[in-house]
Amino acid sequence: MKDIDRLCAAAREAALSLAPLPEEGRNGALGEMAAALEASAGEILAANAEDAREGEERVKSGEMAHPLLDRLVLNEGKVGQMAEGVRAVAALPDPLGRVGYDMLLDEGLRLRRMTCPIGVIAAVFESRPDALPQIASLCLKAGNACILKGGKEALRSNRVLAAILAGALSRKGVPPASLQLVEAREDVHALLSRDDAIDLLIPRGSNEFVRFIKENSNIPVLGHADGVCHLYVDKAADVKMAVDLAVDGKTQYPAVCNAIETLLVHAEIAPAYLPPAAEALRAKGVELRGCVRTRGFLPDSAPAAEEDWETEYLDLILAVRVVDGLEEAVSHINRHGSCHTEAIATGDEAAARDFLSRVDAASVIWNASTRFADGFRYGLGAEVGISTEKIHARGPVGLEGLVTCKYQLEGEGHCVAEYSGEGGRPFLHRPVSPESG
Amino acid sequence: MKDIDRLCAAAREAALSLAPLPEEGRNGALGEMAAALEASAGEILAANAEDAREGEERVKSGEMAHPLLDRLVLNEGKVGQMAEGVRAVAALPDPLGRVGYDMLLDEGLRLRRMTCPIGVIAAVFESRPDALPQIASLCLKAGNACILKGGKEALRSNRVLAAILAGALSRKGVPPASLQLVEAREDVHALLSRDDAIDLLIPRGSNEFVRFIKENSNIPVLGHADGVCHLYVDKAADVKMAVDLAVDGKTQYPAVCNAIETLLVHAEIAPAYLPPAAEALRAKGVELRGCVRTRGFLPDSAPAAEEDWETEYLDLILAVRVVDGLEEAVSHINRHGSCHTEAIATGDEAAARDFLSRVDAASVIWNASTRFADGFRYGLGAEVGISTEKIHARGPVGLEGLVTCKYQLEGEGHCVAEYSGEGGRPFLHRPVSPESG
Repeated sequence: MKDIDRLCAAAREAALSLAPLPEEGRNGALGEMAAALEASAGEILAANAEDAREGEERVKSGEMAHPLLDRLVLNEGKVGQMAEGVRAVAALPDPLGRVGYDMLLDEGLRLRRMTCPIGVIAAVFESRPDALPQIASLCLKAGNACILKGGKEALRSNRVLAAILAGALSRKGVPPASLQLVEAREDVHALLSRDDAIDLLIPRGSNEFVRFIKENSNIPVLGHADGVCHLYVDKAADVKMAVDLAVDGKTQYPAVCNAIETLLVHAEIAPAYLPPAAEALRAKGVELRGCVRTRGFLPDSAPAAEEDWETEYLDLILAVRVVDGLEEAVSHINRHGSCHTEAIATGDEAAARDFLSRVDAASVIWNASTRFADGFRYGLGAEVGISTEKIHARGPVGLEGLVTCKYQLEGEGHCVAEYSGEGGRPFLHRPVSPESG
Repeated sequence: MKDIDRLCAAAREAALSLAPLPEEGRNGALGEMAAALEASAGEILAANAEDAREGEERVKSGEMAHPLLDRLVLNEGKVGQMAEGVRAVAALPDPLGRVGYDMLLDEGLRLRRMTCPIGVIAAVFESRPDALPQIASLCLKAGNACILKGGKEALRSNRVLAAILAGALSRKGVPPASLQLVEAREDVHALLSRDDAIDLLIPRGSNEFVRFIKENSNIPVLGHADGVCHLYVDKAADVKMAVDLAVDGKTQYPAVCNAIETLLVHAEIAPAYLPPAAEALRAKGVELRGCVRTRGFLPDSAPAAEEDWETEYLDLILAVRVVDGLEEAVSHINRHGSCHTEAIATGDEAAARDFLSRVDAASVIWNASTRFADGFRYGLGAEVGISTEKIHARGPVGLEGLVTCKYQLEGEGHCVAEYSGEGGRPFLHRPVSPESG
């Protein structure tokens, strides 16, 4: 176990030096990080080969699933992509110093609220080693120090990556403690009680893991949990479009949180919609589990049990329910959904607006696939994760999830006493327009 | 103890009906709430008189401090102010539906991120009964249902106020469960584990209380903790201005979190600054506790102990320390401060900019009093509280602390498969300017 006290103190110290670093300084360090990854490709691949060898043995002995091994293994091309990813983060607009509130409180007394770094961010992520440079570069771009814990399968790869990146920071005069690695699970547990030292926790992994983190820490958590997403096919839907949306939502990549798990169908369109939808879905290998009414139209589908409405299959299985209308669809979703991504197919704008405003979810979608809900597709440039929190950042989170803000007040010796009590001077409270700034 | 399950379910149900309520609906309900308060002044004052009678007995027996009783007691004028406060909230700009991100992902596929209600907010507040209509109206304006727990000293007043306000909601077709009261401490404890039902906790009270809430709940908390605020008098400060800022920061209202607790003075200006500053502060009854160097200039001041640098006196006591420069001042503040409100007095703009960017606090101030740091003075219209969180909302929090956002995507049947893999269609990612919306 690392000396967690020393690690936390160094992270805070580093965060305080990062805070005033101008954009050029942060981008310069990111450029050096990218170059260092390319220059050290041999070293990275050697360490990764050892991780991969151990992984292969674990696959043989059945301790590890094969897809996990695929994600673990690096090659020249992937190292090049890591470096490109870091450069892409450098190229993003600066998330710091953005003014969100600008108010003249009185003559000579101006208040601005502007974005600034959060401080120290601890991120725990899965076995893909390319997650490390990605998260590290996003944290640095936003002026934060980070403490990283990767999957144990990628231990050697992560160790080398972290050392290379910290070395690059050092060469650019940025404290290398801006990027620190912890390796043991006990270290993560020790960090959970350090709300004095860590400002935000970003756990990526299973729902159980995210829940464990939340229950064992009073540090704010930016987590992502279940995606039990729905497509509701309204009576005014275009049948072909709604079939395509169901197929895309379910089959384009079933193992992800924004794939649909339940299809809700308006009773009036069910006779026209369900048969072609079932045919198209089954052609892609989807197993359907229907409610009683669904099975009236699709007698060969399996019956859905109560738990099907709340299951994230992450697989080619789709629950199907016939509802009497939008009202029932919305309340099914608000009751059984996970507030992640919810879609309606309809040609009726009033119905769509009603759905969009009444469904409580991070992303609400009209006539498009739920699969669009991610940071890259949303144009955020890079994604920290998809947050199912409602507080601080919701849905696909880009750099703006890694910043907070501070109020900056500039006066000429203004004191509050002058504005207080009977006959006190009134405030001006005149918003400053962006142009006159 | 109330039936917490039923209460939570009713709150969620109410939140879901509030979400689509347009601004007119929310403002209409607020108007009705204000009118109901005025119409029921007699009933409110009768209940409050009982609370006050009990309070007087508790003051006599030494169980309650007199200032608490003053804050508890209502009169016609205060009831009128409550109603005016509710109307002022109705008059604030709508915090919902504000578009913060507007991007054309491709032709016909438009993404907007807009503000929306958080859902269910539970607020626990002090004995002032006027806090109840204030918090209830802010929650309603932002489209949230609220569960409120006031001080036990104001139990009868709060009961009557909550009933009157819920009645007003009901008359306007808003579910009365949008505003529910809990009375027992055990009810609050039961709520802490209901992260399924409550989206945000707002505790107002002592630091110990806020800390207790955070440690016993995995619901996000918008809390406010210590205010250990500093004024740093730089070598380039105007002596008279810096004396005035110290006097205002310490004495204008010492019992609040944005009053200064420590004065840091640059060694080069200390000989010119400390004697007149001490004279002015002592004239207002302030006791000074100085470091060794301070006592060189002010031999009659008491010595400061290590714990003085981290004490929130909330009283006419001020710790004073001489520092060698801005570097030492910034690191003293970042080490001992509470990230609340920090000020510098200087005529040197470069020094000021350095201080403003390097001090980690919700409010950083140049040549003005720390006492300006509150929602009313900042022009936020109404204040939910002053958050010492870094996440979600920081510093004085207005209505924007009571909203979250959702992404709304509108397409024409767009599927992700078309954009995937080799030869996939590229995204457009063209920002939509506000005018062309």
